[in-house]
Amino acid sequence: MDFPTIIGMVLNIGMVCLAIRLGGAPISSFLDEHAGLVVFGGTIFALIATYRLPQLKSLGRVITRAFFYSIPSPEKEIERLIGFATLARREGLLAIEERLEEVKDEFEARGLRMVVDGLPAEEIRKVLENEINYQLERHATGKKMLERGSEMAPAFGMLATLMGLVTMLRNMSDPSGIGSGMALALIATFYGSFLANVIFLPLAGKLGEHGKEESMVRMLVLEGVLAIQAGDKPQLVEEKLKTFLSPRERVHVAGVKAAAA
Amino acid sequence: MDFPTIIGMVLNIGMVCLAIRLGGAPISSFLDEHAGLVVFGGTIFALIATYRLPQLKSLGRVITRAFFYSIPSPEKEIERLIGFATLARREGLLAIEERLEEVKDEFEARGLRMVVDGLPAEEIRKVLENEINYQLERHATGKKMLERGSEMAPAFGMLATLMGLVTMLRNMSDPSGIGSGMALALIATFYGSFLANVIFLPLAGKLGEHGKEESMVRMLVLEGVLAIQAGDKPQLVEEKLKTFLSPRERVHVAGVKAAAA
Amino acid sequence: MDFPTIIGMVLNIGMVCLAIRLGGAPISSFLDEHAGLVVFGGTIFALIATYRLPQLKSLGRVITRAFFYSIPSPEKEIERLIGFATLARREGLLAIEERLEEVKDEFEARGLRMVVDGLPAEEIRKVLENEINYQLERHATGKKMLERGSEMAPAFGMLATLMGLVTMLRNMSDPSGIGSGMALALIATFYGSFLANVIFLPLAGKLGEHGKEESMVRMLVLEGVLAIQAGDKPQLVEEKLKTFLSPRERVHVAGVKAAAA
Amino acid sequence: MDFPTIIGMVLNIGMVCLAIRLGGAPISSFLDEHAGLVVFGGTIFALIATYRLPQLKSLGRVITRAFFYSIPSPEKEIERLIGFATLARREGLLAIEERLEEVKDEFEARGLRMVVDGLPAEEIRKVLENEINYQLERHATGKKMLERGSEMAPAFGMLATLMGLVTMLRNMSDPSGIGSGMALALIATFYGSFLANVIFLPLAGKLGEHGKEESMVRMLVLEGVLAIQAGDKPQLVEEKLKTFLSPRERVHVAGVKAAAA
Amino acid sequence: MDFPTIIGMVLNIGMVCLAIRLGGAPISSFLDEHAGLVVFGGTIFALIATYRLPQLKSLGRVITRAFFYSIPSPEKEIERLIGFATLARREGLLAIEERLEEVKDEFEARGLRMVVDGLPAEEIRKVLENEINYQLERHATGKKMLERGSEMAPAFGMLATLMGLVTMLRNMSDPSGIGSGMALALIATFYGSFLANVIFLPLAGKLGEHGKEESMVRMLVLEGVLAIQAGDKPQLVEEKLKTFLSPRERVHVAGVKAAAA
Repeated sequence: MDFPTIIGMVLNIGMVCLAIRLGGAPISSFLDEHAGLVVFGGTIFALIATYRLPQLKSLGRVITRAFFYSIPSPEKEIERLIGFATLARREGLLAIEERLEEVKDEFEARGLRMVVDGLPAEEIRKVLENEINYQLERHATGKKMLERGSEMAPAFGMLATLMGLVTMLRNMSDPSGIGSGMALALIATFYGSFLANVIFLPLAGKLGEHGKEESMVRMLVLEGVLAIQAGDKPQLVEEKLKTFLSPRERVHVAGVKAAAA
Repeated sequence: MDFPTIIGMVLNIGMVCLAIRLGGAPISSFLDEHAGLVVFGGTIFALIATYRLPQLKSLGRVITRAFFYSIPSPEKEIERLIGFATLARREGLLAIEERLEEVKDEFEARGLRMVVDGLPAEEIRKVLENEINYQLERHATGKKMLERGSEMAPAFGMLATLMGLVTMLRNMSDPSGIGSGMALALIATFYGSFLANVIFLPLAGKLGEHGKEESMVRMLVLEGVLAIQAGDKPQLVEEKLKTFLSPRERVHVAGVKAAAA
Repeated sequence: MDFPTIIGMVLNIGMVCLAIRLGGAPISSFLDEHAGLVVFGGTIFALIATYRLPQLKSLGRVITRAFFYSIPSPEKEIERLIGFATLARREGLLAIEERLEEVKDEFEARGLRMVVDGLPAEEIRKVLENEINYQLERHATGKKMLERGSEMAPAFGMLATLMGLVTMLRNMSDPSGIGSGMALALIATFYGSFLANVIFLPLAGKLGEHGKEESMVRMLVLEGVLAIQAGDKPQLVEEKLKTFLSPRERVHVAGVKAAAA
Repeated sequence: MDFPTIIGMVLNIGMVCLAIRLGGAPISSFLDEHAGLVVFGGTIFALIATYRLPQLKSLGRVITRAFFYSIPSPEKEIERLIGFATLARREGLLAIEERLEEVKDEFEARGLRMVVDGLPAEEIRKVLENEINYQLERHATGKKMLERGSEMAPAFGMLATLMGLVTMLRNMSDPSGIGSGMALALIATFYGSFLANVIFLPLAGKLGEHGKEESMVRMLVLEGVLAIQAGDKPQLVEEKLKTFLSPRERVHVAGVKAAAA
Repeated sequence: MDFPTIIGMVLNIGMVCLAIRLGGAPISSFLDEHAGLVVFGGTIFALIATYRLPQLKSLGRVITRAFFYSIPSPEKEIERLIGFATLARREGLLAIEERLEEVKDEFEARGLRMVVDGLPAEEIRKVLENEINYQLERHATGKKMLERGSEMAPAFGMLATLMGLVTMLRNMSDPSGIGSGMALALIATFYGSFLANVIFLPLAGKLGEHGKEESMVRMLVLEGVLAIQAGDKPQLVEEKLKTFLSPRERVHVAGVKAAAA
């Protein structure tokens, strides 16, 4: 979820606060624990009622991971894999073992270790593809839960607004309270819409993009690892992996010569 | 539907009641048999008019089953199947027969009995897959009916609100009744939205998740039963069945050694 | 469309009338030929403008047929086909001819006649599948037209309400008419929503279910007829046809022994 | 677009005018050049901004063609093709050439001319299928543009209503103008909804049906032309082409005997 | 995005301004920096929070390119490729090299250079198809971002309107401010709807059409380049490439004779 998501959300929250202040009202006039209870509580309880426990736990993990784990850039990945391919051609597969601890990315380390251990290509591909698929599914489930949240929040906002309106309409004998009654009722709709559009929808969108990007990099690593095992020439490894990049990105890869230097 | 669904729904209902009380109104002020008649009656009658009788009966069965029948955990299933595989290798397929009554899950018992009876693998796969498909369809139909309900409830809520508004507007000569008239009219919209978002949608979502989970466990059992029939080594059975689990879950399976102990 | 649809719709209409009476208004206060003209007329004229003449005619036919033609139960169908299979094995295909007039279902009679006439299996399958497909398409088109109607009715309801509001707002000099003017305007929205949710949507849903059910029974008959032609043993015919039933339904079929008795 | 579309639209426009008059208002009270400018202008300008010039031109052509070109009935087409097949069998392919000018339908004439010219079947099929596909795409694009229009019209209607409301609310010092101000504002919403539901949506629906129908007839002609080239017996041509008809329609075809008479 | 998009948008903006003036209000009465901040700021910040940085940068590039880069017409492309095919047949592939700088389109130049360099057809096809796919994806992503913007703008418009209403309702003690308070609140909804329907949706639609058109022309160029490499006769090249055109467009191509002249 890198910085843009956090920055975009913080900017949006700040912008809303600024707009309230510019409108001449104190921010406290938009705080209502009553509306908050129904909108936040209702959305969370509805999600609890809809999903199974392990899925709910997994959502938190997927989001925090997306915030703190930055996907390795494909260009860097390609350069590193070319390096390993060169090493393997010069000094044999076992030479990779010594430099395995340099590899921070668990997925890549796992693939290379299986190569060093001499597992057949079939097996390596199956294990790594399996892992890619599980992660794609975790991301897809997380995205769906956040989208469900973005539908639930406005629904509970409207529910709370209806509750406020009914209560207000029953006490119309006191006309001075009508304005503030309606104001309170509308705050719930505001909360629901805010939650959906400022929090849930961007988070869901980013999770989807993050998942696509990460699985692309992992596919690239998978192909690179298998090419190393097959003993491909570094030039061929570079060629194969560059097809994962757009023409514009390919320029940024320091190719075989740089790696060999 | 385990506990989370019931808990989530109860929390949501309690939360709405709490919010009404916090708003300073008695809960009775949100009870209106008039609105209830149109929203609940209309939704149920519309479902009756839309679906065939056996489908309507099946819905109740699917929901109650989902509440009271907890899906066996895939980890436990794998351990049990490894146990049977070990037994079959050591003492022959017939040794399974004696321990068949231990198996509580009807589906698994049926599969194992067919193995003991010496039916060909083709036949066993066809019968069990047929059953998995029927159940998936039952779940899908149930989910679709609940989703249809979640569309119908707000529609009849709006219908009742319109009826309330028309009646109120015709009697505007008595202005003191306007407030309570509108309040009553809005309660129907509240009912429709409540029914859709607190009851129908979470139930529909859970039914979908429950169906996916159950069919996954059954696919696993199907593969396990066929592996036992084929006389696979327990290690191979474990290997095959673990591909149904995410890497994180695999750790929780007490493997062949534990089962053989 | 059997009874449940009619009952569900009648209950819904009765419920709405009851709710109006309980609300203290005469039912006549919800009758407005003005709103009726725009909502009913507009929806029908829009359907006429959207579809071709033969499609419009076919809609009426499909609906009335669905009301008055009850699909033969698959269990009964299986029993009858087992009976014919037994007869064909004992006394030859020609023995079927004598009992052909007992078969009320046109589709089944046609299939059996082709068997008696000695047409090749290929040909029989092609003719019958063609007929199943045409019927599925007729049902699908009918369903789509009713769904289009369920979108058009609320749209014309809103159109009529807008017309009522504009007219009312232009005559605000007479404030006593505002209430009844708005009431009249809202009745059109009520009509549109009623038409969509009480009539069109359940009818569309039922047509879809009816089509699925009927084509399933016809697939079953098709397979049964071909099995009879192939001279399959009654036990095998029973086995083949029972795969069309859910495990729960299979119990209700009086099998070969009963039929042979 | 034959008569039903024109009749349905004219009836709908007449019905709306009648309803306005019945509501006691002059029709002129629903004319507002202000609202018309925003709704009609905005929708057209938005379509211009969305599509490429050739697409916009093609839309007009597709609609007018659909109005003035009536699709030959499949029954008539089959009879004519059987006639040509009989002729070709009796007097050779060249006999068709003399009667080619009787064929009004360009597509059919083109197909038959290619047969007479002795082009290979492969080539004829490719050329004719290509033409069918281009026409299907033209219809699909036209339908999509009209549907886009049916989304844009209500959007600009709401835009104009908002503009009217803002202007009115700013001049609330004159309370006598509120009613007519709101009436004017609502007329724009009325225009948008009218345009979408009475004009754009039926036109889009009809274009879709028209395209499906025409491409079906052309597929039939394509198969007939190829059967004639292959020298099929008239009876076989009849058999082949009748599979394009529903069982009900087949009765209306005057078969080989009639054609040969 | 050629002229129509710019013209359509400018006309729409002008039309809205005209309509405001015709409504008797100064245009300045529709300017509100408060509403602008929430709608424009919120939409942009939400997009930043949803997409990754390179995607956001790419959006600007795709739009500006679409504005300033006009797709070569397929007819012109075909004529040029026929010219090169004639040249290659007469004077050999190397003769193309000399006239390579005449080719302005980068994609075509690249393809022809690979032919001159003697790369195998397989390789050329792979490289060029890869480029077509990357561009299609860039267009699709850009379109999706603009559509997301067209959903976000009205959502933030409603959010700002709710904020305005709440603030206004809290200060109902001053009744003279109600009208202008509501007017200000509604301006935000107006902004959101304007942004979505006048800017985002047409831009998204055009980007989609532009992408489809450009990739079609590039597919045509790809086939033409490979036909030249294969040494096809100019007549055959013309035949092959004309299948990319509709029958109506084919007339406009100056064929082999013209090119050979």
